[in-house]
Amino acid sequence: MTVSANVGWLAIAGLGPGGEALVTPEVSAALAAATDVIGYVPYVRRVAPRAGLTRHGSDNRVELDRARHALSLAAAGARVVVVSSGDPGVFAMAAAVFEAIEAGEPDWRALDVRVLPGITAMLAASARAGAPLGHDFCAINLSDNLKPAALIERRLRLAAEADFAIALYNPRSAARPDGLDRALAVLRGACTDSRPVLFARAVTTPAELLRIVPLAEARGDMADMRTVVIVGSSRTRVIERPGAPWLYTPRSVA
Amino acid sequence: MTVSANVGWLAIAGLGPGGEALVTPEVSAALAAATDVIGYVPYVRRVAPRAGLTRHGSDNRVELDRARHALSLAAAGARVVVVSSGDPGVFAMAAAVFEAIEAGEPDWRALDVRVLPGITAMLAASARAGAPLGHDFCAINLSDNLKPAALIERRLRLAAEADFAIALYNPRSAARPDGLDRALAVLRGACTDSRPVLFARAVTTPAELLRIVPLAEARGDMADMRTVVIVGSSRTRVIERPGAPWLYTPRSVA
Repeated sequence: MTVSANVGWLAIAGLGPGGEALVTPEVSAALAAATDVIGYVPYVRRVAPRAGLTRHGSDNRVELDRARHALSLAAAGARVVVVSSGDPGVFAMAAAVFEAIEAGEPDWRALDVRVLPGITAMLAASARAGAPLGHDFCAINLSDNLKPAALIERRLRLAAEADFAIALYNPRSAARPDGLDRALAVLRGACTDSRPVLFARAVTTPAELLRIVPLAEARGDMADMRTVVIVGSSRTRVIERPGAPWLYTPRSVA
Repeated sequence: MTVSANVGWLAIAGLGPGGEALVTPEVSAALAAATDVIGYVPYVRRVAPRAGLTRHGSDNRVELDRARHALSLAAAGARVVVVSSGDPGVFAMAAAVFEAIEAGEPDWRALDVRVLPGITAMLAASARAGAPLGHDFCAINLSDNLKPAALIERRLRLAAEADFAIALYNPRSAARPDGLDRALAVLRGACTDSRPVLFARAVTTPAELLRIVPLAEARGDMADMRTVVIVGSSRTRVIERPGAPWLYTPRSVA
């Protein structure tokens, strides 16, 4: 295979939450044109093997190494797709690639780098449950290794004070198994006991599991590493019905 | 055309920011199976006419009427898609439909209602500019008619205090032309002058326009009704390069 050194590019693509029907045509086209796919092993596995495509799977928590590898390949003329689940711009590989560029080879700034958005976990979860993010909201990453616990707790307090609906990403990272229990304790100090909490696991995959509980009953072990948690605002409502209830936040506070 | 009264359904679908390559296959399949498409006129126009499909365009600001119309059609056996731009769960039609259900006919709770997520404006804008939402962030709707101005200003202050990146939707609604200037004034009181602000207009369409300015130079008239505004956190960085600069927020605060 001949690749001109002039045509290398790097796309940072979001594969969405899991279901193939949520992968955008833009992302599918980039994968079809790629010479190299790079990412965390379970995401790379979602890309079918084919002639002319090299799949580079790597461990979690090596995002900067992975980003440098991708940039080096693109600089050498490869057509590279870095894959993330969900949206690459939300707690995923896009920021890691730009960190690597800023600290890396000056030539990397001239590369053709594009971020291809995807359906991020909180919006897939929200859609499956109803519309809990229908009014103002925030997204907080509970992963421990990137910021101090005190900052997470401070943000949770301010988010509750602002009365945002709150999406919690990475609620149970391996290195901080009690992170979600601590977050829920902070929120219990600021919100009523009946505030609805959605645990949405592996949305749009065969392992999908949705559960809505009042804040008073929410526990850290209701989440795992494939779960996103959405804590309603003071206005969020549950509609009981035949089948699973719907959860939504009205557009208006008037 | 014969439609059984037993097979009606309602899908609330996100068409993404504008580019056809960002419409998910799930949404395309729902549109292909629909008997009726309902929404704000410019969004309904994005769905090609075909035999067997009735397109119902309506004005902006009649969301509840539109939702009731869609529910009535689905209850009568139609296969209905309510279309929003972006993601229907973010400041769009999904919450309006659930409001209409909660206040409406008891039978509506038994309907097959599904929300089909889409690429929301802030994530499309973030992708085009780099990764400004790569760390914790919030989304605030500046539209005036759904909440008091004092609540918007309070949320902006708390969001700045939490050091979120802040996405501002509907920055210039017709009824509150000075809303964005007031929001920027609040943020100038809480953030440094150099804080980068992204104005992203009509992203992924031929009318796309991106502009990054320091907070001190940001003005309300840099946005229109097709613009989403992203105000960086204290950590957000601009990478100068040949061509448009990249904007990103590092994953870590350590």
